[in-house]
Amino acid sequence: MKTYRVGLVGITGYAGMEVTRLLAGHPAMRLVTACSRAEAGKRLGEFYPFLEKLPGADVVISVFEPEKAAASCDIVFLSVPAGTAMGMAVPLIARGVKVVDFSADFRLRDPQLYEEWYSHAHTAHDLLREAVYGIPELYAGQIAGARLVANPGCYPTCAILGLHAALRNDLIESEGIVIDAKSGASGAGRKAAVPTLFCEVTDTFRAYGLPRHRHTPEIEQEVSLLAGREIRLSFNPHLVPMNRGILAAIYTTLKNPRTTTDEAHRAFSKTWEGSRWVRVLPKGALPETRYVRGGMFCDIGVVTDPRTGRLIILSTIDNLCRGAAGQAIANANLMCGLPVETGLTSAPVV
Amino acid sequence: MKTYRVGLVGITGYAGMEVTRLLAGHPAMRLVTACSRAEAGKRLGEFYPFLEKLPGADVVISVFEPEKAAASCDIVFLSVPAGTAMGMAVPLIARGVKVVDFSADFRLRDPQLYEEWYSHAHTAHDLLREAVYGIPELYAGQIAGARLVANPGCYPTCAILGLHAALRNDLIESEGIVIDAKSGASGAGRKAAVPTLFCEVTDTFRAYGLPRHRHTPEIEQEVSLLAGREIRLSFNPHLVPMNRGILAAIYTTLKNPRTTTDEAHRAFSKTWEGSRWVRVLPKGALPETRYVRGGMFCDIGVVTDPRTGRLIILSTIDNLCRGAAGQAIANANLMCGLPVETGLTSAPVV
Amino acid sequence: MKTYRVGLVGITGYAGMEVTRLLAGHPAMRLVTACSRAEAGKRLGEFYPFLEKLPGADVVISVFEPEKAAASCDIVFLSVPAGTAMGMAVPLIARGVKVVDFSADFRLRDPQLYEEWYSHAHTAHDLLREAVYGIPELYAGQIAGARLVANPGCYPTCAILGLHAALRNDLIESEGIVIDAKSGASGAGRKAAVPTLFCEVTDTFRAYGLPRHRHTPEIEQEVSLLAGREIRLSFNPHLVPMNRGILAAIYTTLKNPRTTTDEAHRAFSKTWEGSRWVRVLPKGALPETRYVRGGMFCDIGVVTDPRTGRLIILSTIDNLCRGAAGQAIANANLMCGLPVETGLTSAPVV
Amino acid sequence: MKTYRVGLVGITGYAGMEVTRLLAGHPAMRLVTACSRAEAGKRLGEFYPFLEKLPGADVVISVFEPEKAAASCDIVFLSVPAGTAMGMAVPLIARGVKVVDFSADFRLRDPQLYEEWYSHAHTAHDLLREAVYGIPELYAGQIAGARLVANPGCYPTCAILGLHAALRNDLIESEGIVIDAKSGASGAGRKAAVPTLFCEVTDTFRAYGLPRHRHTPEIEQEVSLLAGREIRLSFNPHLVPMNRGILAAIYTTLKNPRTTTDEAHRAFSKTWEGSRWVRVLPKGALPETRYVRGGMFCDIGVVTDPRTGRLIILSTIDNLCRGAAGQAIANANLMCGLPVETGLTSAPVV
Repeated sequence: MKTYRVGLVGITGYAGMEVTRLLAGHPAMRLVTACSRAEAGKRLGEFYPFLEKLPGADVVISVFEPEKAAASCDIVFLSVPAGTAMGMAVPLIARGVKVVDFSADFRLRDPQLYEEWYSHAHTAHDLLREAVYGIPELYAGQIAGARLVANPGCYPTCAILGLHAALRNDLIESEGIVIDAKSGASGAGRKAAVPTLFCEVTDTFRAYGLPRHRHTPEIEQEVSLLAGREIRLSFNPHLVPMNRGILAAIYTTLKNPRTTTDEAHRAFSKTWEGSRWVRVLPKGALPETRYVRGGMFCDIGVVTDPRTGRLIILSTIDNLCRGAAGQAIANANLMCGLPVETGLTSAPVV
Repeated sequence: MKTYRVGLVGITGYAGMEVTRLLAGHPAMRLVTACSRAEAGKRLGEFYPFLEKLPGADVVISVFEPEKAAASCDIVFLSVPAGTAMGMAVPLIARGVKVVDFSADFRLRDPQLYEEWYSHAHTAHDLLREAVYGIPELYAGQIAGARLVANPGCYPTCAILGLHAALRNDLIESEGIVIDAKSGASGAGRKAAVPTLFCEVTDTFRAYGLPRHRHTPEIEQEVSLLAGREIRLSFNPHLVPMNRGILAAIYTTLKNPRTTTDEAHRAFSKTWEGSRWVRVLPKGALPETRYVRGGMFCDIGVVTDPRTGRLIILSTIDNLCRGAAGQAIANANLMCGLPVETGLTSAPVV
Repeated sequence: MKTYRVGLVGITGYAGMEVTRLLAGHPAMRLVTACSRAEAGKRLGEFYPFLEKLPGADVVISVFEPEKAAASCDIVFLSVPAGTAMGMAVPLIARGVKVVDFSADFRLRDPQLYEEWYSHAHTAHDLLREAVYGIPELYAGQIAGARLVANPGCYPTCAILGLHAALRNDLIESEGIVIDAKSGASGAGRKAAVPTLFCEVTDTFRAYGLPRHRHTPEIEQEVSLLAGREIRLSFNPHLVPMNRGILAAIYTTLKNPRTTTDEAHRAFSKTWEGSRWVRVLPKGALPETRYVRGGMFCDIGVVTDPRTGRLIILSTIDNLCRGAAGQAIANANLMCGLPVETGLTSAPVV
Repeated sequence: MKTYRVGLVGITGYAGMEVTRLLAGHPAMRLVTACSRAEAGKRLGEFYPFLEKLPGADVVISVFEPEKAAASCDIVFLSVPAGTAMGMAVPLIARGVKVVDFSADFRLRDPQLYEEWYSHAHTAHDLLREAVYGIPELYAGQIAGARLVANPGCYPTCAILGLHAALRNDLIESEGIVIDAKSGASGAGRKAAVPTLFCEVTDTFRAYGLPRHRHTPEIEQEVSLLAGREIRLSFNPHLVPMNRGILAAIYTTLKNPRTTTDEAHRAFSKTWEGSRWVRVLPKGALPETRYVRGGMFCDIGVVTDPRTGRLIILSTIDNLCRGAAGQAIANANLMCGLPVETGLTSAPVV
């Protein structure tokens, strides 16, 4: 197997950390470059004690320079803030490097929508047009041919995979969808800030970002594409006192209020039959974030409520692995012509 | 101030434990009897190390006998399972003892509904008719005159207080209400069971009981009464890796989709103006369970979403204090002619 | 009861927050002044949502000025960093205000020792000489007459109370004492910093500060005074993924290796007989931090190990209440001539 | 690579669960038999939702019968209680199956010591004599030739690896060693019991089992062997509100009190140079349980304290992986002639 040389820009966040963890066990990719202005000069193993004695530990952190990155890497993961990523992607792509971008810079296909929700201009319209939205289950073909993949947000990944079978089987109305999503604190990032201190998060529960969290337009864009009609929905995130994991409860209205759980479950099972990573749970079972911890699975439970005519979908992923670093590596695998699951086969760590 | 003699039947659960904690600081109530078949013979302070050197620690746990309880107590809290409580309430009431029942036995006004959701017969129809549903903010007058108060469920308390102002001000449609509620693990009780072991709850998140949790008919009954019309809603509980606390996100449809957050917030503030325990947060603020920990407050945040025409209400309480033991003591205060807040004035323990 | 007017300088930390919580329920003290440069202008209730509708919520945060504080307050709590506190204490004392200082500025009786461990000069030698070390169980008389009380550190409070009976009853050798102490994350303060983010503390355990944590000389000074001979010991703190609480395991060598647990337990029980807050647990029982949460208790368990000739003492307190704010209020009670337990009678919140 | 057929007896505990997780990614072992009386008849994937779509999920749980197990397996892991394991090992070994036993049945070389600490008779003295204590770093050669490996306890693994370099380099006295160990709640097992319910473990900290935890004689036996002289020590376990992980603080007395941290660190680094899994941290760094989560590493930090003449060793492992299932697989690898790290190369999941 050929070994692909990988660069990672942005290592101080949890997504970057997760990339280094997964690459340490990847049989066909080798981390050769890791960039961070703040930590330049340190060995990765010094910065990440968990990585010592593993592949990647000896990489010395450097400041990002497009030429150097292009010279040393076949593919680069950008794990930097929205607004910064586009400026890095342009020179990398121009030099023939494949790019997987973790930020929102290439996710919203309409630059105006981007500017409305992210409050700064989009400066790479051409690249935006060619970027592929990177959910392997839905867009494997396009991803394989892409130079630039927009790695989806964690909440959107969870919501889109959860809704896909319901839309595809025409089970639900487009109107009135409510997503009540809950995320572990790693989703809030690794920046020093009082609201994410241990004592501010443990033994408590809260909503945040209502009613205009930035993942809203991303979810709407993608489920509208899947549905073939415009969907406007209510997306409401919450913070759970846990490290990793997202669970979304998706409340929808059945087209036929007499659809049974049995029927809905059969439709979901059929749609995801043979899927490597989407697991439709047995009828009656509900997903838990721990059962997907550290891995690529998306576990889905479905319930209908005849009293209210609702289909309720519970969808869960690991926000750092499936919702960021792992999905990025899956996309990179496809872009490099590798099997999509290469390096992503570990069982969840319960 | 006269001192009322209090009995507590059922001490091995978290609600019973919370009663002992609150009574230790109550200036006008004294715990004189504590009953538990399993722990009979022990001092309370031995069973609850936190209680040592505090009032109540020296009470010796005994087996419940109605005559003895009636002879020694002015008021009795029943913290026993549904189905058991009604059999205890009857002889106590008959002997002139006031009763606050923590179970569901006297909450559903229709015995058939009770039998449908709780799968056993209701054997105390007469008492059921006179029982008062014990939310002090809504029914203080009736509670003050009651012999038997049905202490509300924790989820219903949170949901009903959250919805009250929206219904009263006619802001929302009766149809399509979704309650996505999240509770700490103390809500699951103190019974030895694998699913509530530490390692099965920490660092994970899951829904449970969908779509037919037993608090559903209780919530529907009460909000229908408040609204003056039948309301059928979707209630969906989740388990949070925390000890105490409930937060409910209540998704509703605005009658007038152009209602602003400002207007909704004003209506809520007006309705709850002067309330001792319901705190409508400043506009834009969202509640957190920790800010009500250990106390009687119900914190409410409101948000409207013009994109989807929704009013979203976030309501939070401490499930053990406001949602069980504290509310029971508030009801007992009213039944004894004491100010409702007697013994319930401590600040939340953040 | 006369009401004492209280000032609090430093509100952004957890100890300051705990002061406001406890004062909200204090029958003879009223918070009239709260100072913080960073938060000046806000209402306390706005800054601390848990405090709304409680006494103190309407105090407007101001910048500290000694004259203003002296004019409005009978007593002031200084909850500011070591090095800053002494400069504030001098003008307050000079104006006749009583001061309880939470920092280390007046704890070490030898200014040279202070300078060695805190790396800056001590500028208030006169005040240092008159300051009283504020453990009410040991120094109530002196505290009652003091103008300035050095409020002990959280770890020292736990260790000193734990060791007191062993030293007083001459059960143990002075040499070879090891304290292995574990604290919740609130002990690390409320400053924005990566190492105390939720994801860096949850589901993990670590030691820190070895082998020279600043509480070492404070513990050594006080236990040497209690023992009447110089004691040098090894103090080793750890961080527990919990909010509040300290538990110290204190490993000592029995003078008589055949001392039984029975004998040691009797000696401890005798020494602390009648103590309001120190609870020597029943023989065989071991303390837990949750049983003292939010209160003033210090729970102590003792075990002897005949195999190794050791007396092992397990001592636990709530680091924010007993280890900081609550002990400060107990000291202030004594300084004001109030019963020591005034406002400090709530049961722990398990 | 040949594939070895593996049996697992006892799947309802956390160690058994961890075996199934690790075998799902093992390139040369295949789980073919899983036994549990209580769960017989279920698919493993049904019992362990995290395992679905992974190797092993389709194994149907059966009741243990030695003949069947012997017929279908090359090697069997016994994850059953002490006292039960020996009765299962005998017929398996007799039928030529290799056995790795997770219980204490073959750890204590002296059957009398076993009977004293475990309160039942040892019924397999012959097997006891040939059993090898399975720490691969110390006994790889003997393990490779063994029919029966006694898989070490979690605490002993952590303590022995931590002490090894200090003893081997003759840095410390034999007397006066204190081990203050802290474990996550998975160490307490997966049995339904009130003391390990979430609400009894979260946000609290406690010691347990003092002063006679059963791992004491196991640690003493092994470190005495390493030291070449009898060592009697004090072992004191604590429960941390976390899932996995053990951290032991080991307090020892330096032979030469002037030994510097530098010197001690050099000695440790030298001893463990080239070790696959023991990582001596950089001087000044202290280990954290999260950095070894889910893996085989043992991270060690060393500190000397010239004030007290002590060497303090901090040693940490994952109790389920390194402390049970992972170490068992490493032992099985050696017994099968495979490289010790086969299937155990994943990076820790921070």
